[in-house]
Amino acid sequence: MKGSGVYELRELKLDKYNLKINETLFHNANGYIGIRYDFEEGYEKRYSREDQFVPSQYINGFYEYLEINQAEKLYGLVEEKQIMLNIANTQSIKIFLDGEEFSMFSGTILAGRLCLDMERGITVRNVAWRSPKGKEVYIAITRMASFHQLSLFTIEYEVLPQNFSGDILIESSHNGNVLNYADPEDPRISDEVIHCLKPLSCQIKDEVTYITSRTSKSDLEVCTCVKNVLCQGHQKEFIIDNNNATCRFHTTAKQGKKIRLIKYAVFCDSIRNENCRSKAELEMARALSVPLEYLYERQEEYLADYWNNCGIEIEGDEELNSAMRFNLYQLIQSVGKDRYCNVAPKGLSGDGYEGHYFWDSEMYIQPFFTITKPDISRNLIEYRYRTLDMARENARVLGHKSGALYPWRTIMGRECSGYFPSGSAQYHINGDIAYSIIAYFLATKDIGFIQEKGAEIVFETARIWTDVGNFHEGKFYINDVSGPDEYTCIVNNNYYTNVLAQYHLNWAVKIYDLIKTTESFNRLVQKINLKKDEIEGFKRAAEFMYLPYDEGLKINPQDDSFLQKKRWDIKDIPKENFPLLMHYHPLHLYRHQISKQPDTIMAHFILEDAQSEETMLNSFNYYEKITTHCSSLSPCIFSIMAARLGMEDKAFAYFENTVRLDLLDKQKNTIDGLHIANMSGSYMAIVYGFGGFRLKERGVFFAPILPRLWTAYKFKIRIEDSRIMVRVRKEECVFTLESGSPKIIFVYGKKYLLEKKLIISRT
Amino acid sequence: MKGSGVYELRELKLDKYNLKINETLFHNANGYIGIRYDFEEGYEKRYSREDQFVPSQYINGFYEYLEINQAEKLYGLVEEKQIMLNIANTQSIKIFLDGEEFSMFSGTILAGRLCLDMERGITVRNVAWRSPKGKEVYIAITRMASFHQLSLFTIEYEVLPQNFSGDILIESSHNGNVLNYADPEDPRISDEVIHCLKPLSCQIKDEVTYITSRTSKSDLEVCTCVKNVLCQGHQKEFIIDNNNATCRFHTTAKQGKKIRLIKYAVFCDSIRNENCRSKAELEMARALSVPLEYLYERQEEYLADYWNNCGIEIEGDEELNSAMRFNLYQLIQSVGKDRYCNVAPKGLSGDGYEGHYFWDSEMYIQPFFTITKPDISRNLIEYRYRTLDMARENARVLGHKSGALYPWRTIMGRECSGYFPSGSAQYHINGDIAYSIIAYFLATKDIGFIQEKGAEIVFETARIWTDVGNFHEGKFYINDVSGPDEYTCIVNNNYYTNVLAQYHLNWAVKIYDLIKTTESFNRLVQKINLKKDEIEGFKRAAEFMYLPYDEGLKINPQDDSFLQKKRWDIKDIPKENFPLLMHYHPLHLYRHQISKQPDTIMAHFILEDAQSEETMLNSFNYYEKITTHCSSLSPCIFSIMAARLGMEDKAFAYFENTVRLDLLDKQKNTIDGLHIANMSGSYMAIVYGFGGFRLKERGVFFAPILPRLWTAYKFKIRIEDSRIMVRVRKEECVFTLESGSPKIIFVYGKKYLLEKKLIISRT
Repeated sequence: MKGSGVYELRELKLDKYNLKINETLFHNANGYIGIRYDFEEGYEKRYSREDQFVPSQYINGFYEYLEINQAEKLYGLVEEKQIMLNIANTQSIKIFLDGEEFSMFSGTILAGRLCLDMERGITVRNVAWRSPKGKEVYIAITRMASFHQLSLFTIEYEVLPQNFSGDILIESSHNGNVLNYADPEDPRISDEVIHCLKPLSCQIKDEVTYITSRTSKSDLEVCTCVKNVLCQGHQKEFIIDNNNATCRFHTTAKQGKKIRLIKYAVFCDSIRNENCRSKAELEMARALSVPLEYLYERQEEYLADYWNNCGIEIEGDEELNSAMRFNLYQLIQSVGKDRYCNVAPKGLSGDGYEGHYFWDSEMYIQPFFTITKPDISRNLIEYRYRTLDMARENARVLGHKSGALYPWRTIMGRECSGYFPSGSAQYHINGDIAYSIIAYFLATKDIGFIQEKGAEIVFETARIWTDVGNFHEGKFYINDVSGPDEYTCIVNNNYYTNVLAQYHLNWAVKIYDLIKTTESFNRLVQKINLKKDEIEGFKRAAEFMYLPYDEGLKINPQDDSFLQKKRWDIKDIPKENFPLLMHYHPLHLYRHQISKQPDTIMAHFILEDAQSEETMLNSFNYYEKITTHCSSLSPCIFSIMAARLGMEDKAFAYFENTVRLDLLDKQKNTIDGLHIANMSGSYMAIVYGFGGFRLKERGVFFAPILPRLWTAYKFKIRIEDSRIMVRVRKEECVFTLESGSPKIIFVYGKKYLLEKKLIISRT
Repeated sequence: MKGSGVYELRELKLDKYNLKINETLFHNANGYIGIRYDFEEGYEKRYSREDQFVPSQYINGFYEYLEINQAEKLYGLVEEKQIMLNIANTQSIKIFLDGEEFSMFSGTILAGRLCLDMERGITVRNVAWRSPKGKEVYIAITRMASFHQLSLFTIEYEVLPQNFSGDILIESSHNGNVLNYADPEDPRISDEVIHCLKPLSCQIKDEVTYITSRTSKSDLEVCTCVKNVLCQGHQKEFIIDNNNATCRFHTTAKQGKKIRLIKYAVFCDSIRNENCRSKAELEMARALSVPLEYLYERQEEYLADYWNNCGIEIEGDEELNSAMRFNLYQLIQSVGKDRYCNVAPKGLSGDGYEGHYFWDSEMYIQPFFTITKPDISRNLIEYRYRTLDMARENARVLGHKSGALYPWRTIMGRECSGYFPSGSAQYHINGDIAYSIIAYFLATKDIGFIQEKGAEIVFETARIWTDVGNFHEGKFYINDVSGPDEYTCIVNNNYYTNVLAQYHLNWAVKIYDLIKTTESFNRLVQKINLKKDEIEGFKRAAEFMYLPYDEGLKINPQDDSFLQKKRWDIKDIPKENFPLLMHYHPLHLYRHQISKQPDTIMAHFILEDAQSEETMLNSFNYYEKITTHCSSLSPCIFSIMAARLGMEDKAFAYFENTVRLDLLDKQKNTIDGLHIANMSGSYMAIVYGFGGFRLKERGVFFAPILPRLWTAYKFKIRIEDSRIMVRVRKEECVFTLESGSPKIIFVYGKKYLLEKKLIISRT
């Protein structure tokens, strides 16, 4: 990895806002566990509920059920949701220097630095501190969520006495008493502050503390275990009090001699393990069986491979280059690594949106992995496959006699949408999932996986389209669904939904034809009772799919009635009224031509061949004026389409707006967690936007442009067995086959065979 | 009053179902208080929560606030509702015959009868009872909610020992500990069981017990007071225990000599009275200042006038005639008599729908009063006037900068809709209220009231139309509202809404022209800042109002997209799945051509001149097939329109189906209270349906038909200063001017001057 692999703050601001921003930006995660960056020694008011400083650590896919109170209990409304839980706190370490407790809020910080090293996969805090009584220490704290051993989180805590020798007391705790917190005023996040996880036992065995906790409704268990290793002579005692196990070390400091504590924390849950307690014991033994340095090496190795796979680099703008790396680093931190989980909008950096998985996964995050690390993409599909039965149940609730309808938001597979018009009504989730499976197939040609699992999802979800829609005047209509734009809900013939359903149905037929002679196909047909005439039905619905088009404006209307609604000039809306959903009644939003995020424009991006260039350009110009970008999913798509339609400067402006969204806390909610889909969106803005990359049935397409301010940029794409490096400069694009067999590629519409290297002039 | 003025049960069934049905059917009410028919001596398991036997007594318009939990707290969603409260129980009377307690569930009922006397305005229970030890008594209990003194409820309790003499103990209680109950499984009614009303004090003064209770959130007080008068020698003691005041009488029974107890209960609330405690004292003194017989006479007098005013009678079908009288009796029991209340869908017979007021008042109940007892109609408008400020606030919440939007459901004026798509989105409530004011004006020509109050409502509500709608392609569109049919929500250009808005806007202009030269007009213009160009805007919106019309079917579509939706044959729906809203997800309902109740057909009824005869007939035939009548508001309108369109037998069938809905418990929910709007609807089915009555700007219209099975029917209409009696026989209709000045009437389209009597041949 070239370029800056480090994101650091050279000056630590200790106000509440910055502390909470840093909790998010410097969190450690590996797709299984996520640990927010809490100071080990605590804040000024530790655990203060008013200040909402709750040390937070999560397990991806681990949940509790909570009741949803529906104001009117209509049939089928969701009455129970899942929430991601805060797991036992393993972070706390207090240190006392001759009785003086180290704290960032007492004494003097002589120097302070917080650093995220994205090559080594660690965060480091360096503090030079003078105690109130004048003792000076240098403290370095290194935290890692291991990619090599997903259950493992380590803290390496080094103390170097600068001007004194004396008694040192270290208290390292492992606390099973945890809360979940949230902001009751914001509908976008959970509104409960509750004690969900109840400690069952707190034990010590071989100097390892084990806390096993259980949820009361979802009936899940989690075991955390902690081992503290102090690498010098000491006396040690354990104190267990109310499910808080503290290991207390008494040792001696010598001026100039480093004291080193390693705190190993292991997280194991009962979703993945039959016995999470005994599994935790094994995992701890595994962690302790190698030196910490070995784990650091594996971490670096894992990331080297990761960076090499995506290989993105911007030349000529180091700031944006760093921001892009930061974003990609967060993607690998966030994405689930097994079929028990997916990737939440905030990843594992915060519990905004309650840790639910949305369409973000398939439409924003998965595209990155599909073309750089397809095994992860397959894993994300495995997660959907694992929850297919619940999608079937959900379809029954919505009144569909067959097929599967995926939930709009979920952790374990059941719908968690409290407000269905901008939740369960978003039937496009089915198309999004199918789209991601098709993309995976196009990138990998992994027909075995399609036969085994992908096809079942594609068929079952396709069935919903033919059931939800109906023929009217010779056309196939899809009524009463919501598209991606949540400022206009429950509409008829949402263009995005219809054009995606058409693609989905066509692919269901293709997949049918591709696998119909295989043995696994027969098993599938029996299992889901798939009839030949259903496939005919898919074909017919796709062929006659109604795609709204306005002859006057020569655009695709967002839905049947969007263009007849009132206009509302965004310039007339007071700034403090954004995001609009916090300041206007849904009906007020629904009856205006105003969009939260791209809807038709999103359709133009993912299915560009469904309409003419002219229509796309008109649509872009039309919808751009009425899109508020209240969603962080918005600017990246506008960037991509601006690039696609030749508006290079506009594309760059949108890109710039999106790439540092969390680093600059642009939406003022980074404290709740990162905007992972936006981060992946910024990747897409380079590869799909500037790079003009498209993955189609006919092959892979490129049409690179180069932002004016850049010297060059590059990225890598994995197609089937090959990895292609693309480097775009002012004069030329260079395509290099880094590995694998030669591939046909299309560049600016022309077909080439890429054997080793291909240089295509841009002038 | 001729014909049966009595509804009676000659055999009392004592199973839970029948007891609860009778609680509703035999309740006593006068528009201010309502007392369900609970046995004074209690049931088998008195107060059993499991069996939901909660003695219930209500005050119209008296409420507590309850939180509404919104699953997602979007801006403007209602988070607090009002509920009608159960007021202190004044019904309980226990009697012990030589120690044996009288109960309908012990000993032997030798004869039992329950009777509602609609001429005298009382309910009577007669029981001949043999105690387990063989003592026989005859008990007669008469209950009255006084129309003469609205605060007063009386129980006259007579005991006649048949075969014994001995000690009698009577315990008459007054209990301040009351609960509200409801069925948590039914979204149509409240789902909380709660203790809302907290007793503050329980006192005795001059042998009257006073219980004052207070709500905790709405900060209202109610005082109930009870006086027991035993008309023979006795010893008396009072026991007060935990806000339950019992008066205990020890007396002696002599065989053949009647013992008579009169229990007076007075209800006073702090909404209407500054000091409800002292007002209760005055009201009790008032009740006690006259003999009970005097109150009975006033009751009879009040009702004689009432029956004479509406004068409805069916000859040739005594059963339907009785049912009609039963219905009209319930209307006068239910309707509010002051501006602090209105009329709830269940009247004061039960707390279904939480005692909220809906459009039922204006579109179903008020039409009856407008043409028979217009002072009550004016009162209902006064209620809306009183809550106009809250309608203004509600409009602001929905995003309208001026004007007033009435809440879809409310008690004290603030919106209580938990689920806005079939609640607040029903903007037609504004048109309904304006329509009722216009009808009141047409019937009374009471321009003074219009100037003073009516116009302000009409203007303020009209403003919403021009703000919610917008011009599109030269037409005025109203997007994203819901019509009366709650099986299709949030639609564009709902025909009912648009055609009603057009009528409303046109009338706003007419009223403007009518009153613009008056002094009160100037005050009004200043108060609401009404601009001349707003009136121009009303005119323009009305003129260009878009009224959807389908050229192929030659019908008015229910809304822009109704006809493009899936069909769903009602015959295919299993019987147990009705009402559909209890068995299908809203989205499933929304995307089918299926209606809960008349929507376009309702529009055709109230505004028949807005479309051609042919369109109305086609619409009727079209919508009839897809209407489920899941609402009790439905069949009466179909009856009226069937009559209007010449389908006499069909009109009669719908009428028959609607007129005895509660007497036969057709919807299986009469236990929750009567269906008052349906009852008024059955009246409309005779007057507007068979009688062909219409109230228009041009005059009053009649076009009577006679159901095949009837000999004749008659009704009376009050127009301005006159009362017209209409009698329809096979051969002729006879119009008699009972009082007032001669009037022009239209019969079968021809204009006549009714001076004394007019006989028009029907052959």
